[in-house]
Amino acid sequence: MEIAVIGLGRMGANIARRLARGGHDVLAYDRAPGIAATLAGEHPRIRAAGTIGGIVKGMGKPRHLWVMVPAGRATDSAIRALATSLSRGDVIIDGGNSNFRESMERAKSLAKRGIRFVDAGTSGGIRGLKEGYSLMVGGERAVVERLRPVFETLAPSPKRGWGHVGPAGAGHFVKMVHNGIEYGLMQAYAEGFEILRGRKDFDLDLHRVAEIWRSGSVIRSRLLDLAAESLAEDPELDGIEGWVADSGEGRWTVFEAIDGDIPAPAITLALLMRFVSRQDESYAAKLLAAMRNKFGGHPVKEKKRS
Amino acid sequence: MEIAVIGLGRMGANIARRLARGGHDVLAYDRAPGIAATLAGEHPRIRAAGTIGGIVKGMGKPRHLWVMVPAGRATDSAIRALATSLSRGDVIIDGGNSNFRESMERAKSLAKRGIRFVDAGTSGGIRGLKEGYSLMVGGERAVVERLRPVFETLAPSPKRGWGHVGPAGAGHFVKMVHNGIEYGLMQAYAEGFEILRGRKDFDLDLHRVAEIWRSGSVIRSRLLDLAAESLAEDPELDGIEGWVADSGEGRWTVFEAIDGDIPAPAITLALLMRFVSRQDESYAAKLLAAMRNKFGGHPVKEKKRS
Repeated sequence: MEIAVIGLGRMGANIARRLARGGHDVLAYDRAPGIAATLAGEHPRIRAAGTIGGIVKGMGKPRHLWVMVPAGRATDSAIRALATSLSRGDVIIDGGNSNFRESMERAKSLAKRGIRFVDAGTSGGIRGLKEGYSLMVGGERAVVERLRPVFETLAPSPKRGWGHVGPAGAGHFVKMVHNGIEYGLMQAYAEGFEILRGRKDFDLDLHRVAEIWRSGSVIRSRLLDLAAESLAEDPELDGIEGWVADSGEGRWTVFEAIDGDIPAPAITLALLMRFVSRQDESYAAKLLAAMRNKFGGHPVKEKKRS
Repeated sequence: MEIAVIGLGRMGANIARRLARGGHDVLAYDRAPGIAATLAGEHPRIRAAGTIGGIVKGMGKPRHLWVMVPAGRATDSAIRALATSLSRGDVIIDGGNSNFRESMERAKSLAKRGIRFVDAGTSGGIRGLKEGYSLMVGGERAVVERLRPVFETLAPSPKRGWGHVGPAGAGHFVKMVHNGIEYGLMQAYAEGFEILRGRKDFDLDLHRVAEIWRSGSVIRSRLLDLAAESLAEDPELDGIEGWVADSGEGRWTVFEAIDGDIPAPAITLALLMRFVSRQDESYAAKLLAAMRNKFGGHPVKEKKRS
């Protein structure tokens, strides 16, 4: 079917490519000039649009538009810009990592203009182009059903890896928890490899251990495959700083757990360890050291004042 | 090659079966009478031994004996019983989940009698029979090399899923951390599904969500496959009590992290949540409620005294 892809970053460009290779007619747009044209040069089924107005004019009705831009302000402004130009019956799909509460609101406010909203939580990373994406879809059943050819193309296979999970917002909610789980899984592997490395007398080859675990073990996983790749390139990870970003879903998962009185210590601690990783210096640790000094005379490491 | 399997529980019996099917001559023994004979009836390459002495007499030298009994006292008494009957050059392989420090000690004390010790951390669970086991092997290189045909048969494929990771003890150390990681991974999935379930307005089909994630998503894994199976059978898990055992490796991993000054909060909390799951009543929670009552007059839930 005909579909526009708005936002041609790493994920958006690959979504456009996978759709075009799957036989869909893709109208590609990115705010940054030139990107859409370059992508259009790759595949005859991809056309470039230079403006939002150009997308809207270039498509038959009802229009289907896949928005793949960073969550928050970028998604908000892209959808607002689209909404003013679209017609009743058009469908906006947000494939990004938007907060599910915002998606619920968006669905309501777009519905007032007769525009349909579908939230499609999308997992798969840079391998998704080749292997397909796992898609968690929220929205009205009939609208999701209309988009079936798109989801069947993007998923690893038409029958696997995608599904309508509930009303608008449910897709991003499920993707949020998916990412929260991912935080916990990553933290568990990371801690385990650090414990392995800590036992210097065994002088373990961490890449080799990861490779052994990848076949047959109960902890084999996609994330272990990726960890093994990193360990193969540089087991000491000398080229990487121990500084870890977080882009929203982890903290939203923790908020949701707290809102629902649900104990989620592993996911919560995984988030907090990312905060720790970003502190050059811990004020709390300084205060702990100071208090130990006060009550027990334990020495502190003094710092040279600059 | 000729190999004895001592201990024919779920894991041991499957190890014996996979070895026999792979062309090895297996001498099977279990402390409980009759089990070895039943297993021997399954495959022409499995013979039954009725006593430890019978195993030793029934094998050519040097003997290779795979011990697959519960860690701790059972492993200790099985290995002690074997050690008194074996000869110089014989090899005991401990395939169970023994503490790696005990394995280091065992290797030393067996070496005094000229008996070789290999620790083979074994992962794969009940699927291992069909799919093969992930094997983390510690011991002298030459001895491990001699056992190569055994490991090549038990692993998912001769070249994948097994490896010599270091000296005696290193195999069980790597398996211990493997299981510690498993605690963290399981806890992260468990928390995530509880958060999904907590959002009643979306009325999510948790089995369906698990199935979507199994294809293409970044959190796909063996453990997710198993979670999906459980959710398919009974999404509310009504037939299962929320009571979780731990069999050693998780707590040993946490001890090791603490010994090495390595922060491992996700694995640690995963262990502690198992303790929480086993408390009918929390004395600490009672004291918290009592203190809130004292400082703020907050109501406590009063308990009927029996």
